[in-house]
Amino acid sequence: MTLDPHLTIENYQTALKEGSAEPYDWWHYCAACIEKREPEVQAWEALAPRLPALPSEVDVGSVPLYGVPVGIKDIIDTTDMPITWGTRGYLSSPGAQLNAALVTLLEENGALIMGKTVSTEFAYFTPGKTHNPHDPTRTPGGSSSGSAAAVAAGMVPLAFGTQTAGSMIRPASYCGVFGFKPTFGTLSCDGVKPFAASLDTLGWFARHIDDVCTTFSALTKAPPIPALDNLKGVRVGIRSLPVDEPLAPDVKQALANAQERFENAGAEIVPLSLDARYEALVEHQKVVMAYEASQALASEYHHYAAQMGIKLVELIEEGRATSFERYIEAKRATSQMQQTLSQVFSEQVDIILAASAQGEAPKGLDATGDPIYCRAWTLLGVPCLNLPSSQGSAGMPVGVQIIADRWQDKKLLQVARTLMKMS
Amino acid sequence: MTLDPHLTIENYQTALKEGSAEPYDWWHYCAACIEKREPEVQAWEALAPRLPALPSEVDVGSVPLYGVPVGIKDIIDTTDMPITWGTRGYLSSPGAQLNAALVTLLEENGALIMGKTVSTEFAYFTPGKTHNPHDPTRTPGGSSSGSAAAVAAGMVPLAFGTQTAGSMIRPASYCGVFGFKPTFGTLSCDGVKPFAASLDTLGWFARHIDDVCTTFSALTKAPPIPALDNLKGVRVGIRSLPVDEPLAPDVKQALANAQERFENAGAEIVPLSLDARYEALVEHQKVVMAYEASQALASEYHHYAAQMGIKLVELIEEGRATSFERYIEAKRATSQMQQTLSQVFSEQVDIILAASAQGEAPKGLDATGDPIYCRAWTLLGVPCLNLPSSQGSAGMPVGVQIIADRWQDKKLLQVARTLMKMS
Repeated sequence: MTLDPHLTIENYQTALKEGSAEPYDWWHYCAACIEKREPEVQAWEALAPRLPALPSEVDVGSVPLYGVPVGIKDIIDTTDMPITWGTRGYLSSPGAQLNAALVTLLEENGALIMGKTVSTEFAYFTPGKTHNPHDPTRTPGGSSSGSAAAVAAGMVPLAFGTQTAGSMIRPASYCGVFGFKPTFGTLSCDGVKPFAASLDTLGWFARHIDDVCTTFSALTKAPPIPALDNLKGVRVGIRSLPVDEPLAPDVKQALANAQERFENAGAEIVPLSLDARYEALVEHQKVVMAYEASQALASEYHHYAAQMGIKLVELIEEGRATSFERYIEAKRATSQMQQTLSQVFSEQVDIILAASAQGEAPKGLDATGDPIYCRAWTLLGVPCLNLPSSQGSAGMPVGVQIIADRWQDKKLLQVARTLMKMS
Repeated sequence: MTLDPHLTIENYQTALKEGSAEPYDWWHYCAACIEKREPEVQAWEALAPRLPALPSEVDVGSVPLYGVPVGIKDIIDTTDMPITWGTRGYLSSPGAQLNAALVTLLEENGALIMGKTVSTEFAYFTPGKTHNPHDPTRTPGGSSSGSAAAVAAGMVPLAFGTQTAGSMIRPASYCGVFGFKPTFGTLSCDGVKPFAASLDTLGWFARHIDDVCTTFSALTKAPPIPALDNLKGVRVGIRSLPVDEPLAPDVKQALANAQERFENAGAEIVPLSLDARYEALVEHQKVVMAYEASQALASEYHHYAAQMGIKLVELIEEGRATSFERYIEAKRATSQMQQTLSQVFSEQVDIILAASAQGEAPKGLDATGDPIYCRAWTLLGVPCLNLPSSQGSAGMPVGVQIIADRWQDKKLLQVARTLMKMS
C-alpha cells in the first residue's frame, strides 16, 4: 500500500490483515518523514535507538495499535531512551528502571514508540527548541510542544502529551491537529513526572478524529466508537471561560465556523450562561497549580532553582507562599462546580463549544502562548477535544474545543466523529 | 533532658530552644531503641547510612520538626538509601535520582530521616518481615507495617505510610498508635510508587495526638491546632461501613469506650444512618483499586508477574478484566456520595466514629488483616484518624477511627486533641 499523511490507524490495520502492508511499513515511512522535517521542526528530544519489537504473542493486526508509530512527551519514563523533563541539561537521566505505565500499555497494544518529543521545562512555560510546522517563526504552543508539532508535521500519526493548564488543547489549536485531553484520571500517570497531581492528565494528538477514537478504545479496552448518522438531538451550548476575556476575531470566526458545522449536522445550538462562580475557576486553577507544583517539584527546586527558568521559579515560590486555606478554598470550589456543571450537562446541554486559545500561534519561540481558555476546564476534570476549525488572519490554524461532562468521553468523541464525517 | 517514649515534638523543640537538649539527642536515643528492639520487631528495610544534616540556614528549634527522627515507608524515594517497594528482592534500586517531595518537605522542616520502613509488596497484601511490637506472633497490619510497628515500639516518634484501602488505619489499630490519613491530596505523592492514583494518600503514625497535630501544621504550613476546652456542640454519629458486617465484641467495646469518652468530653452522640449507597462504596473501592493498580503496575506485571505474590497477581488480573464502564460507574458513585456525605457533615454530624479494623491484630505473619472498614472512607477521600481505644480479649490494642468531611482535617485533629486531653 501507499502510505500518506491521510492514512488512519484502522486503514493500516486492515492493510496489515489483508497483507498489503508489513508491520514496520509505517515506522519506516515516519522515519523518513522525520529525517526530512526534523531539521526545521525540531520536535524530538530523542529517537528510539532501535526498531522496537512487536508483541510476539499476538498476530499481525490483532491488537488495535499494531505497528502504529507513536511519540511520547519527554516527561514520560522509558528504559531505552534518556529523559530530560525539558530541562535542557541541568537534570536528566539515561533512562528509567521501568517504562511508564502508558508505554507498557501502548506496547501491549502493538504501538511502536518512535521517540521522546520535546516538552517545555517540566511541562511549564520555558520553551524547548520546537518550531510550529506551519510557520517555523512561530511557537507550536506548549507544554506538549514536540508531540503536537510531530503530528502536525506528519512525522507520526499519534503522539502523547499532558495537560495541567492548557498543554494539549493550546498546541493542538496552534498546530492544526486534534488534541484530546480525556477525563482526569482516565490513564495512569505512573512514570510521568507530576506537576500538579490533581490536574495532570495524559492525552494524545492525531491528524484524524478516527485515530483519536481508535486510541481511546484501545487504551480503555472500550468498544469502538462509530459515527452517528447525524447530530439531531445533540444540544450544544457555546461558552468560553473566562467570558470576560474579549475573543479575538480569529477565535470568533473559528467558533462561528464550528457552530455552523454543528448546525449543518443537525445539532441544536442552545443558550448557555455560566455564572461568576465558573469565572472564578480560572484563578482557582492557578492556585491549585502553583500550590501542587511547589510540592511536586520541591526536590528539583531545592537542588536546581538557580538553573530553572524564571517563570517556573516564580510559580514555585508563589505556591510556597500560598496558604493551605487558600488551596482548600480552591479545591472546595472545584468540587462544588463539578457537581453544578454535571447538572448543566444533564439538564441543558450535551456539549459545550469553547475557544481553545487566544488566536493563531504567536510569533517567536521564546514563549508558548497563554492557556487561559483551558484552565477552568482542566480544573473541572472534564474531557476536552480540540477540533481544527479555521484559518486565522495570517493563514495559521485556529481550533475550538468541545467539552462534555466527566466520564462522557465516549459521547464527546462520538459527536466529534459524526461532525467530522458530515463536514 | 531525659528522653523517653512520652516526649512530644513540641516538648523537644522547647528543650532545644532552652538548650537542655542537643539537635541529635533524639536521633541517638532512637538509634539505641532500634538497636534494642529491631531484632524482634524488624520494622526497617534500611537505616540511614549516616547522620543526616540539619538545615544549615535555620536556627536550632526554628523549624517545627527540628531534630525529629522519622521513618518513611519503603515505597518512597530517597537518594541515599535503597528502595525495594516491598518486593523482597525481585525489584529494587540502590537509590533514586532525587528525594520524594515528602522527604524534601520533611528535611526543610528539620526532620531527620531515620530509615526506610518495611512495606508489604507494592503496599498490597504480601507481608514483609515485620512483627507486631505488642506480640511478635501477630501481624502489625499492613501495608504500612514497618512504620506503624516502629512508632509503636518507640523506635521513632513519627513515621510515614500510605493508605489505598486500609494501610494506615488498620496497622495503627493493631499496633496501638495514632494513624492519620489526611484528606486525599493533602501531601504530594511525587516520588511515591503509585498503586491506585485516586486513592493513594500519604499519612503518618505517632504515639501522641500532639505530634499528629504538630506534623499536620508543619507540613501544610497551617497554624497550630490547640485543644478546645471541651467538645460541647460537637455532634458525633456512630457508623461503620459496611454496616452489614457484624462487629466483633472487641470492636464493639472499643467503640463503646470511645463513645463514652466523647460523651464525657461534652460531645453529643446523634443518630446517623447511611443508606445502601454508602454500603456499595466498599465494592466500588475494590473496583477502583483493581482497575487503577492494573494500570499503575502494568510494567512491573509485564516483567515480574512470575515473582509477584499471588494476591497481587490476582488483583492486577482482576483489574485488567474490569471494564472501563464498570470503573466509570464506581468513579461516578464516588463523586455523588462525596457530595451527599458533605451534606451529612454540614447538616447532621461533625464527626463520624467508626470501626478501624475487625478486632485485634490477627495471629501469624502470613497475612496483614482485612481493610474492610477503611475501604469506603478511603474511596470518599475523607480524613481518618485512628485513636487507640481499648484492649481486646487477648490484651492487644483495638482502635477506632474518627472521620470528618474532606478538608476538615483541622477540625478532626482539634476534636481528637481535645478528646485526648480530657480522657
